[in-house]
Amino acid sequence: MKRYVLAAVLASAISVVPAHAQFAKVEDAVDYRQGAFSVMSYHFGQINRALKGEIPFTAESVSANANLVATLAKLPWIAFPAGSTANSHAKPEIWKDPEKFKQLQEKLVAQTDKLATIAKEGDQAVIKSAFGDTAKVCKECHDTFRSKH
Amino acid sequence: MKRYVLAAVLASAISVVPAHAQFAKVEDAVDYRQGAFSVMSYHFGQINRALKGEIPFTAESVSANANLVATLAKLPWIAFPAGSTANSHAKPEIWKDPEKFKQLQEKLVAQTDKLATIAKEGDQAVIKSAFGDTAKVCKECHDTFRSKH
Repeated sequence: MKRYVLAAVLASAISVVPAHAQFAKVEDAVDYRQGAFSVMSYHFGQINRALKGEIPFTAESVSANANLVATLAKLPWIAFPAGSTANSHAKPEIWKDPEKFKQLQEKLVAQTDKLATIAKEGDQAVIKSAFGDTAKVCKECHDTFRSKH
Repeated sequence: MKRYVLAAVLASAISVVPAHAQFAKVEDAVDYRQGAFSVMSYHFGQINRALKGEIPFTAESVSANANLVATLAKLPWIAFPAGSTANSHAKPEIWKDPEKFKQLQEKLVAQTDKLATIAKEGDQAVIKSAFGDTAKVCKECHDTFRSKH
């Protein structure tokens, strides 16, 4: 039952992003996905800064940031045309193991939706734990599919 | 009354973006705002392509794109630290006339929220008109505050 619900949530979450991706040039796709990652990364970082007390921790603000992270986490995946590694951290492994890449996308979407749901409640310890779980999903994908240089 | 409602909607829309912007470097701010504009521009373009019949027009897909445009339209404005024109289309006029710049931000936020509301209804002619009105707001700001080179 739990797996069924998760699958339904995932299907619904991913379906909000229209499937007809149209990028005139490969560079436009790279620009789009880097843009989505940049904005997501900033708002994810803001949650971290609130948890560390560098900026005020308010349920409203953390929840707004987590909602943005969850929205943005669904976007970049339409923008990985085959072999688009130029001016990018994308590793060729993305197109060698598309199943694994897709599995990690779905994991991120599920985890960021969970973080957004938890953030609404405003419990700092619970948010911290969900934040850590989300950071692990980022790292898991970066370790395999993102070059450091 | 109408003006009061509009002001309340605007205040509520803009307040979802946490006010504590923290960018370690000016380049990070430029990267963030350019990212937000890139992603917004892509989804705005997808509405145009659906209206022109280049991709299927479905209320669900146009509405998803319009929701993303409305979400993203609220973001870039925290990322204009004074004088940050390097590697950017931003013109110095942004910091010479901050009131006008802010007024156009609010106009865009109001108009993209309107487009998102209209898109839900799925009436192609009404969406086309709201799309055109939104494009005019983009242009109005670009003409004054964005360099072409």
